[in-house]
Amino acid sequence: MHQLIALYNHPEDAAAFDRHYLGTHGPLATKLPGLQRFTTMHPGPDPEGNPPAYYFIAVLDFADGAAVQSAVASPEGEAAIADLANFAQAGVTILTGAGEVVVSA
Amino acid sequence: MHQLIALYNHPEDAAAFDRHYLGTHGPLATKLPGLQRFTTMHPGPDPEGNPPAYYFIAVLDFADGAAVQSAVASPEGEAAIADLANFAQAGVTILTGAGEVVVSA
Repeated sequence: MHQLIALYNHPEDAAAFDRHYLGTHGPLATKLPGLQRFTTMHPGPDPEGNPPAYYFIAVLDFADGAAVQSAVASPEGEAAIADLANFAQAGVTILTGAGEVVVSA
Repeated sequence: MHQLIALYNHPEDAAAFDRHYLGTHGPLATKLPGLQRFTTMHPGPDPEGNPPAYYFIAVLDFADGAAVQSAVASPEGEAAIADLANFAQAGVTILTGAGEVVVSA
């Protein structure tokens, strides 16, 4: 499989970020063609109580690299990318690559 | 659900890293009690051809926060954490927190 992982920096307004993600960006992402699995996560502080390195992480699984490319290039993908400017002004690191499902219950 | 995401920095010796992960660390992680899903990913270069921000990413899903804490505190978890010193000398960022499965095919 291939994965797309988005690491979102801490936003200035966390409540506004969450509201936009839940109401707009998440629903846009769920429409990506070929999307097989999609999880989101709010990291907690580290064991020493320091803020986490990122505010929010999304993990999207696709069948293969061609499926990721098609999804990103689709109208739904273009809409999702354009929407980043509406809530991810603090920055986002997007990583894509070949992955492996090691354990699946 | 709760997730544990490990973001590994670029190692000095990528082949040695991969060998150790595949032969030792991955198998240790699969033994974590309560582990429900476990994926690994080698990010590719970004669209401009720059090296990705991280070399390797592991995503582990558990039922809830208590399951993550139990897994980390278990003998298997202690062994996996101790093993980081054997291959992740370049550094690893571990993030844990509450997550959501938005899409699951």
